[in-house]
Amino acid sequence: MTVRFGLLGAGRIGKVHAKAVSGDANAKLVAVADAFPAAAEAIASAYGCEVRTIEAIEAAKDIDAVVICTPTDTHADLIERFSRAGKAIFCEKPVDLDVARVQACIKVVNETKGKLMVGFNRRFDPHFMAVKKAIDEGRIGTVEMVTITSRDPGAPPVDYIKRSGGIFRDMTIHDFDMARFLLGEEPVAVTATAAVLVDKAIGEAGDYDSVSVILQTASGKQAIISNSRRATYGYDQRIEIHGSKGLVSAENQRPFSIEVANGDGYTRPPLHDFFMTRYTEAYANEIASFIAAIEKDATITPSGADGLAALKLADAALQSVKEGRLVKID
Amino acid sequence: MTVRFGLLGAGRIGKVHAKAVSGDANAKLVAVADAFPAAAEAIASAYGCEVRTIEAIEAAKDIDAVVICTPTDTHADLIERFSRAGKAIFCEKPVDLDVARVQACIKVVNETKGKLMVGFNRRFDPHFMAVKKAIDEGRIGTVEMVTITSRDPGAPPVDYIKRSGGIFRDMTIHDFDMARFLLGEEPVAVTATAAVLVDKAIGEAGDYDSVSVILQTASGKQAIISNSRRATYGYDQRIEIHGSKGLVSAENQRPFSIEVANGDGYTRPPLHDFFMTRYTEAYANEIASFIAAIEKDATITPSGADGLAALKLADAALQSVKEGRLVKID
Amino acid sequence: MTVRFGLLGAGRIGKVHAKAVSGDANAKLVAVADAFPAAAEAIASAYGCEVRTIEAIEAAKDIDAVVICTPTDTHADLIERFSRAGKAIFCEKPVDLDVARVQACIKVVNETKGKLMVGFNRRFDPHFMAVKKAIDEGRIGTVEMVTITSRDPGAPPVDYIKRSGGIFRDMTIHDFDMARFLLGEEPVAVTATAAVLVDKAIGEAGDYDSVSVILQTASGKQAIISNSRRATYGYDQRIEIHGSKGLVSAENQRPFSIEVANGDGYTRPPLHDFFMTRYTEAYANEIASFIAAIEKDATITPSGADGLAALKLADAALQSVKEGRLVKID
Amino acid sequence: MTVRFGLLGAGRIGKVHAKAVSGDANAKLVAVADAFPAAAEAIASAYGCEVRTIEAIEAAKDIDAVVICTPTDTHADLIERFSRAGKAIFCEKPVDLDVARVQACIKVVNETKGKLMVGFNRRFDPHFMAVKKAIDEGRIGTVEMVTITSRDPGAPPVDYIKRSGGIFRDMTIHDFDMARFLLGEEPVAVTATAAVLVDKAIGEAGDYDSVSVILQTASGKQAIISNSRRATYGYDQRIEIHGSKGLVSAENQRPFSIEVANGDGYTRPPLHDFFMTRYTEAYANEIASFIAAIEKDATITPSGADGLAALKLADAALQSVKEGRLVKID
Repeated sequence: MTVRFGLLGAGRIGKVHAKAVSGDANAKLVAVADAFPAAAEAIASAYGCEVRTIEAIEAAKDIDAVVICTPTDTHADLIERFSRAGKAIFCEKPVDLDVARVQACIKVVNETKGKLMVGFNRRFDPHFMAVKKAIDEGRIGTVEMVTITSRDPGAPPVDYIKRSGGIFRDMTIHDFDMARFLLGEEPVAVTATAAVLVDKAIGEAGDYDSVSVILQTASGKQAIISNSRRATYGYDQRIEIHGSKGLVSAENQRPFSIEVANGDGYTRPPLHDFFMTRYTEAYANEIASFIAAIEKDATITPSGADGLAALKLADAALQSVKEGRLVKID
Repeated sequence: MTVRFGLLGAGRIGKVHAKAVSGDANAKLVAVADAFPAAAEAIASAYGCEVRTIEAIEAAKDIDAVVICTPTDTHADLIERFSRAGKAIFCEKPVDLDVARVQACIKVVNETKGKLMVGFNRRFDPHFMAVKKAIDEGRIGTVEMVTITSRDPGAPPVDYIKRSGGIFRDMTIHDFDMARFLLGEEPVAVTATAAVLVDKAIGEAGDYDSVSVILQTASGKQAIISNSRRATYGYDQRIEIHGSKGLVSAENQRPFSIEVANGDGYTRPPLHDFFMTRYTEAYANEIASFIAAIEKDATITPSGADGLAALKLADAALQSVKEGRLVKID
Repeated sequence: MTVRFGLLGAGRIGKVHAKAVSGDANAKLVAVADAFPAAAEAIASAYGCEVRTIEAIEAAKDIDAVVICTPTDTHADLIERFSRAGKAIFCEKPVDLDVARVQACIKVVNETKGKLMVGFNRRFDPHFMAVKKAIDEGRIGTVEMVTITSRDPGAPPVDYIKRSGGIFRDMTIHDFDMARFLLGEEPVAVTATAAVLVDKAIGEAGDYDSVSVILQTASGKQAIISNSRRATYGYDQRIEIHGSKGLVSAENQRPFSIEVANGDGYTRPPLHDFFMTRYTEAYANEIASFIAAIEKDATITPSGADGLAALKLADAALQSVKEGRLVKID
Repeated sequence: MTVRFGLLGAGRIGKVHAKAVSGDANAKLVAVADAFPAAAEAIASAYGCEVRTIEAIEAAKDIDAVVICTPTDTHADLIERFSRAGKAIFCEKPVDLDVARVQACIKVVNETKGKLMVGFNRRFDPHFMAVKKAIDEGRIGTVEMVTITSRDPGAPPVDYIKRSGGIFRDMTIHDFDMARFLLGEEPVAVTATAAVLVDKAIGEAGDYDSVSVILQTASGKQAIISNSRRATYGYDQRIEIHGSKGLVSAENQRPFSIEVANGDGYTRPPLHDFFMTRYTEAYANEIASFIAAIEKDATITPSGADGLAALKLADAALQSVKEGRLVKID
């Protein structure tokens, strides 16, 4: 079976998915839609597909699945429309920044027996997958403490910050998902600390740029998350899991694995400086996983429920900062 | 000038200090006292010093300084006595497990213009000293986030746990001191999570074995501490500081720097499995620093006040766990 | 401009190049030829190109360049034919196992003003390219000593060994090319040691499986090469260059950058176990470099002369082993 | 039993051994001799021993063993004298720079049933010992290829070079010993390449500063040695052994195990810059091994025969360079 795709949104991340779909032997990119015709045409030309409207894709008989890469505030509506239209849906995170809206959207997906995958790409990084595999194989025994370090090379523009939902919903949400993925048990309490250390303008926009979070599960497992919006040394993405029998960790990735030594010491190059080059393989694996799930009619992971769970943790973290206390998850 | 020493307590850590004092060109071990005569005699014989009573050392004209390695519950009393006797004092941590008692003891030290160094040995580890030097030289800009991972190879006996004051006062206290040392700004708030994941008997003794702590300073700097009473891979002792211009970290130490590669992968040996072999150089540097401070009549660091500050953070962490909230430090 | 390609040989390495050409925005795979129709058809189907005979490709107006992936003993003939036909040629190494035959072939290429690139893929590995860049930027001063460690995961079948021209012409030849690439000065003398340590059958076939080679340039620069046909820990591919101002090295690559720690130590996974997965990026970069050189009518590197120079070093190494002496390169 | 020591030579290395002997619970430093009275007195004062003449130490009843740290050209004579006097002898390498003289000296030692240890300190480095242990435990199967990288931080004065016997006898000799130690089989052939790349004055003094050597054993095992008199990044001391079942290696050592990361990359400090700080533990272990062998009347290793074997390899390497050929060891 070849899964026939429509792409909604031809921006930066849309291009990544267009390439992944086109390069997959089990998929075909049939059409692309974008509010900016030039963007859609660029992808259509590069990958030999048609430009269509969203409505046309919704109604198309020759399209089985869509990839939603449009602006965040359109996600929930599009998921509902395409779920009703019977298309399998891959949607970039988040479904929405509002828990109630996400819940309503998931309700529609469930009622229409829709298929929805939410784009937590990091689960598909080969190194993080190898970490998960090591845990699942029992190599570290029972998971006890997860440590996630996640720092961006540089802060986004303040305009972006204002629309982002705040650092917990925009940035830490990836780490909340990763923590859930690795803990193997649902967090039941969140405590967080947040500050503005990188850029005052971020504070003036009502957000934070440096946060520390502790999650705790019912059995006492703990996850620590450390986030900064700026790291001079590149895109810092590390995970480490301490268990009853050992520890497993994934190193940072760098584009060039060389080392130069001289009187100043031994120097390796900085890390990747962009999430797209850091997670190139993750994006390809993610779409391949979506395609495989459709082909085999298998359960799709991460699901809308995973998106919702991570968002609830983000809301709880913000509440913890505001109220100076541990916040329990219902 | 040669600093002439009396050693109080000839146990495991007493031996370490006896060797350090004896090997220091600017110091001389004159006498040793211990409740067990055989222990004192063993040190006297190995290092060519006399066995005396504590009272005799207190009254001795030929002793300038003492090293207190007796049981914890004797520390505060001995500090007061020897401070009144005009001896410079190096005391193993803690001064006491009770904040009020520590405050009273420091009052006596101050009134008698005593010299007191508290044994936070890790400040003198050459690798951690190099980290501090890198910060002080401005190599990472302003400190923003400190991460301390500190895990023991194995849990101590439950009998020890019961007398220890609990994990925060016994184990995390080293990390509280290290956090203060590295942050360069006093923590004003503590939030902590604690669980029993390693050994139920520890829980039954009213203590925890796995804790995560976040400290925050007035300007928003954050320190994260991760502790476990058990790590199968050895004595895990790492620090990492993220700053405005970069990051500095200290790796774990292992006794043998080899690697064996085969079809199972590339394997380096486990870490040190004992704090004394891990911190051999730290113990020697610590005493050398104490001796140098006495010789030069310089300020002694870490002081009784440092001991007190760390203890207050420990108490606050415990309170945070009990009350499920952020606890402010007065 | 789009460079239109014919592919000669649809085997394992042919598939790699077919994918690289198809995925390059500046190239198009037009036709494929192979003695086994099924192999050619598989590539034609996967990449949407035609199956043609070699003769048809030779005569085709719609083909600008060919990639030669046929058996070694056909390379020189095909290079001559396609050079006469005015096609740009990428040929897998070696041009031929016989120096005189290679010289004759290069003469034809020169007479026909042909364009020939020889497939020393490792020059295009991003990590080795970064090493070369560091040298060219002067970061290690003048190159003095090059060390190349190159070990295969496992020995090839003895049937392959028999046709291979021997370890120096088959395996070490890559390292001879890399040494020339990195030394920046032509080797003028070779001394080599060879033994059969891995598999007696290789010795019975008249070849060696474990060799050590020293190259020396006129100014005294040295390159050391260490080869084994078997490494239990994977495909060991390291280079290191010591210069007047410092050292630059490239680490081994592994598919998964994780580490598991427990009582047995800290273990990272083995290396890649296959040259194609190890050098995936190198193969793509190599073809991209060939395409770019054609587009810009630029000098093609590595050239036939580079292939010849490496082969001469291989012959000299074998002679050095046989005669127990340093062999000078004319 | 306490082994009572006389120290001959109170220079730089004499001080190292004086400290090691004094700090060993099973040994006592009784006397020191030096042509410069002030040097001898400094050691006598620091370690509480007497200053005596060499003759007095030779005749002394209260001395069981001597450590010879006098100039190289006195070693063989002193070994003979003290062997005849019935003292156990630890002698810094080399016994002599001339093979015949070494042979004559060993003859005397054997005739007098003397005990002689030659100072190849690197065998006692804890990391290299761990490598040897891994080999002996069969963790890498049969040893096949040994690679030794050994580079000094900076070239010694030309005056030293002139008296040194040349790089092979002065510097590479340590690596010849290490190769013998690790190969587990005697080298039977040597081939070497040498050049002057660091300092022309070294060449004018008739020596080389950059050499590459291959050793081969009867069964075909190979050892590669790479030496330079200058490494900007510190004292480069690495060994790596490839065997039938795996590989074992020892990393370089650095005084501080920290890493600083910023936009320029991840930088670890340079290596040790002095052989005495690099091999501090090796020197202590070496003397401890000597003392233990005397106490237990056990075989002493490395012996005079080990010193002789390494010297023969050095002579053969020089001959190989001069004659451009493989030189066989008788």
